[in-house]
Amino acid sequence: MKKGIIRPGHVQLRVLDIEAALKHYVDLLGLIETDRDEQGRVYLKAWSEVDKFSVVLCEADEPGMDFMAFKVVDEATLIQLEKDLIEFGVEVKNLPAGDLKDCGRRVQFVSPSGHCFELYADKKYTGKWGIHETNPEAWPRGLRGMKAVRFDHCLFYGDELAATYDLFVNVLGFFLTEQVLDPEGNRIAQFLSLSMKAHDIAFIQHEEKGKFHHASFYLETWEDILRAADLISMTDTPLDIGPTRHGLTHGKTIYFFDPSGNRTEVFADGDYVYPDHNPITWKAEDLGKAIFYHDRELNERFLTVLT
Amino acid sequence: MKKGIIRPGHVQLRVLDIEAALKHYVDLLGLIETDRDEQGRVYLKAWSEVDKFSVVLCEADEPGMDFMAFKVVDEATLIQLEKDLIEFGVEVKNLPAGDLKDCGRRVQFVSPSGHCFELYADKKYTGKWGIHETNPEAWPRGLRGMKAVRFDHCLFYGDELAATYDLFVNVLGFFLTEQVLDPEGNRIAQFLSLSMKAHDIAFIQHEEKGKFHHASFYLETWEDILRAADLISMTDTPLDIGPTRHGLTHGKTIYFFDPSGNRTEVFADGDYVYPDHNPITWKAEDLGKAIFYHDRELNERFLTVLT
Amino acid sequence: MKKGIIRPGHVQLRVLDIEAALKHYVDLLGLIETDRDEQGRVYLKAWSEVDKFSVVLCEADEPGMDFMAFKVVDEATLIQLEKDLIEFGVEVKNLPAGDLKDCGRRVQFVSPSGHCFELYADKKYTGKWGIHETNPEAWPRGLRGMKAVRFDHCLFYGDELAATYDLFVNVLGFFLTEQVLDPEGNRIAQFLSLSMKAHDIAFIQHEEKGKFHHASFYLETWEDILRAADLISMTDTPLDIGPTRHGLTHGKTIYFFDPSGNRTEVFADGDYVYPDHNPITWKAEDLGKAIFYHDRELNERFLTVLT
Amino acid sequence: MKKGIIRPGHVQLRVLDIEAALKHYVDLLGLIETDRDEQGRVYLKAWSEVDKFSVVLCEADEPGMDFMAFKVVDEATLIQLEKDLIEFGVEVKNLPAGDLKDCGRRVQFVSPSGHCFELYADKKYTGKWGIHETNPEAWPRGLRGMKAVRFDHCLFYGDELAATYDLFVNVLGFFLTEQVLDPEGNRIAQFLSLSMKAHDIAFIQHEEKGKFHHASFYLETWEDILRAADLISMTDTPLDIGPTRHGLTHGKTIYFFDPSGNRTEVFADGDYVYPDHNPITWKAEDLGKAIFYHDRELNERFLTVLT
Repeated sequence: MKKGIIRPGHVQLRVLDIEAALKHYVDLLGLIETDRDEQGRVYLKAWSEVDKFSVVLCEADEPGMDFMAFKVVDEATLIQLEKDLIEFGVEVKNLPAGDLKDCGRRVQFVSPSGHCFELYADKKYTGKWGIHETNPEAWPRGLRGMKAVRFDHCLFYGDELAATYDLFVNVLGFFLTEQVLDPEGNRIAQFLSLSMKAHDIAFIQHEEKGKFHHASFYLETWEDILRAADLISMTDTPLDIGPTRHGLTHGKTIYFFDPSGNRTEVFADGDYVYPDHNPITWKAEDLGKAIFYHDRELNERFLTVLT
Repeated sequence: MKKGIIRPGHVQLRVLDIEAALKHYVDLLGLIETDRDEQGRVYLKAWSEVDKFSVVLCEADEPGMDFMAFKVVDEATLIQLEKDLIEFGVEVKNLPAGDLKDCGRRVQFVSPSGHCFELYADKKYTGKWGIHETNPEAWPRGLRGMKAVRFDHCLFYGDELAATYDLFVNVLGFFLTEQVLDPEGNRIAQFLSLSMKAHDIAFIQHEEKGKFHHASFYLETWEDILRAADLISMTDTPLDIGPTRHGLTHGKTIYFFDPSGNRTEVFADGDYVYPDHNPITWKAEDLGKAIFYHDRELNERFLTVLT
Repeated sequence: MKKGIIRPGHVQLRVLDIEAALKHYVDLLGLIETDRDEQGRVYLKAWSEVDKFSVVLCEADEPGMDFMAFKVVDEATLIQLEKDLIEFGVEVKNLPAGDLKDCGRRVQFVSPSGHCFELYADKKYTGKWGIHETNPEAWPRGLRGMKAVRFDHCLFYGDELAATYDLFVNVLGFFLTEQVLDPEGNRIAQFLSLSMKAHDIAFIQHEEKGKFHHASFYLETWEDILRAADLISMTDTPLDIGPTRHGLTHGKTIYFFDPSGNRTEVFADGDYVYPDHNPITWKAEDLGKAIFYHDRELNERFLTVLT
Repeated sequence: MKKGIIRPGHVQLRVLDIEAALKHYVDLLGLIETDRDEQGRVYLKAWSEVDKFSVVLCEADEPGMDFMAFKVVDEATLIQLEKDLIEFGVEVKNLPAGDLKDCGRRVQFVSPSGHCFELYADKKYTGKWGIHETNPEAWPRGLRGMKAVRFDHCLFYGDELAATYDLFVNVLGFFLTEQVLDPEGNRIAQFLSLSMKAHDIAFIQHEEKGKFHHASFYLETWEDILRAADLISMTDTPLDIGPTRHGLTHGKTIYFFDPSGNRTEVFADGDYVYPDHNPITWKAEDLGKAIFYHDRELNERFLTVLT
């Protein structure tokens, strides 16, 4: 949070069919629908999140991610970061308050890796879903499916990782928590954090710009991961891999797909970090274990199914 | 226990190198060495077992299983079962007390599926390892690796499943808990129990007689399954599959290999059964989900790596 | 199962108010209502049970247990056990089929400890709730509250434990798994099993006959025990103790109360047993640890709140 | 981290007997001894911590806490905070580098609540115990006892909570995550964070200054909490309460005592926070549930055993 960015705030995902997508994100994953807009977009949040939405679904001809946004502490910070971005040399676009319902103005830009990001300072504060601010119970009753706790991070594929690192670390104040280095010492994967989370965003080197690997949602425990895998089978949802553990971050994880082909991750636990921690390094020749700690080899889908 | 057979009592496994095998069964799996004999065989037990041993390792040129034994309630029962076996038409061989150290006489026979089994009534009672019979603590301190709780069951591949069923159910008093039926109604897999366990033994149809798929060891929880998978990676042990869940029995499981190529399973939980329960049926066309509930497809190794 | 008794089959509990009781047993504990009868009794079952009911609630002026029943393998066994009971010297009462809905005839008797028990061979087979017998999923969706898996056992207080032991072990075929002995060697608590369960029934010495301590329901995991404790708080249900572990059986447990003052237990895991296992002995002077393994002292309620 | 303070860095505890204390903190809790000094102090760390020590034990005639320290990002920050403290009006004492082995200079001050705190910027970086920075395994083998993950926070009792709040929030950059308010709206408990943790430090109103309630250590899971409670029984360690859950923070917890009478907490999970979250309020009249979520009442020890 060195530059005043708090956390990932939302992600807008393209889906081929909204109603099918809602079965995935609401009934299976357990997000809660909080609004819709005149463009037909549907706004969702996870129960522990205090702001109105963290996932926006919009119907499109192709799956993928439109943009991922980070919340900053206040308008002054937003103004400063906007200047810093322009000075860094990225083009900045302003989206007015209300363009996303109940969200303040957003500063949008494209990273060297080819992904669209946003910063914003304001979003309607709705509090945790199903939980009071006075004498709160441990968890809300009435959650569905996997009972996702929060939208956590995204993993992207793209090129120009070094320039992207420069932008995220030096301009936006992220810090490097983990990396994969090839034998020549090139960083082919970078995991970046704003907080104690092992990653708030991650990038993997890829020849094409702007590819989307997955959006990730936090679950509470390894037992919730099992229940999630069971639900994936019960609902005949396409599984990528899991339950298993990552080497990178050591999170316990499942990858699976929404009906449009976007990959969803649910994960639990994993390492905590502080900005004075040395970054963890994984060797590219051990990428299998770095990604899938138990199998110690990549499945074909890991490198190829991108939207 | 209709005919007086209590439980699986031991399994003798062939390994190519005893010392390498002990790293697997003692250091990794967490069994405890209790004795060796003049033939060089090593006797192991899991901590919660009250008898002296449940696994016997013997060095050989080929991996596989020599025999699996069941404990019966007393000598009178053993005499009766011996008669019943002969009457059923299998050849019975008597092994004298002491042939396995501290084990009473064993009645050995080969099932129609081509596997060697034994019955015995007596084995030295050593009590649980590290736990007193008075004011026992919840678990013993000082266990290694995966802290296996007990030798649980074996899965075998072979032919003549119907005759094998007849032997196990009608002569030995097992009951059918789960089965896989092909579209013609042929039973291509049968899971048999003596107790509340979803299986004390299981058979899958295979063109060759006498093949060994795995010996299985019980762990306490899904979290222990994760720790086991972590240890498999840390020790660079060949993993087959897991952590995952089976459809059949719904147990939580990992398959991995000992240094000789014998498959080991660790599993936890799963369904309980009683003899008045209807057997569960899985359709052969859904065998993938029946075996690996999350992946819903067999990996190649499931059908091919047999010893 | 030496004499053909399979398991605890049902318990009839007296409650002061049926609708309040249903909030407890259905909404909170997660049992499923399967029927009512003209006497106003309500029939409940847990999801994994294959027979139509395991708990019967009947309205009365005082809380407590009316009777606990065991299922036997067939009518021939029932006839034999009826003879054996009469020969042992207890008075036997026959209740006709249909007296409890969809349950066959019941043989009722009072143990020396002053508790009413029943044996029966037939009850309508309804299969597991929400789970098919072909290609069954791992667990049913739509369960409520604590998602109780099965009615598991009861703990009773009463006198004449030695005669009660004689009846249960020598006539009914239970075996002793755990006991508490006072310094003079008198058995002041006895835990008895029919199966691999550490107890299907238990008795603690008490000067008054026929007291009821608790009916116990199985949950799957320690995490389910936590969720159960959370639900107890969320619903403002009176807690007795827990989450904790018992010394006896080492089960993970919570005691809490229904609105009529009957104690309910939910528990998970704990030791497995076989009939050739030596019984475990706890010293009466360590009863605190035997009952509540972590606190190592009895709370006042343990000895006094009986119905 | 608004003012550059990263996290709790260490706590110095007074113990009556160092060797007895080491049995508690090393053998039972699972900390690792990293050094001793000429004053006889022993330095300990938890495995996931990257700096050389987080707990210092020193022999004394009375139990209690000498000081708790926070690490700041760099010397410039330390200089600034030192100025801010002096300006706020607390007396500041400088302790030279090396006064604690391998620790840089420390700025010490006493809070209005009567507790001694320190800030420091440098401590020898030793990395996680038993884990490499390249291709790190999921956890280190060879840990003892409860396998504590990190020193997490302290809870103190004292007066002048409002002034202490002012110091911690306005000078040191903590933010309020949870509070207990009495019917008049006075804050009688305040939980403060630097990070995503629900508390890095907490204070409860008490008529006496400078009392110590507990030092808390993080465990990974609810299952680790159970194992910790089991170990407390196995080692005959005095238990205060648990396993249970707190209302405040919703952490899963056990309180127990070291041989000198200092209270130790182990806990897992609980809520995460961000600085834009509204603080949670618990009503003083529901303090029982706020502290012990399941029991919903305080035990006597909670208010009285302070060192």
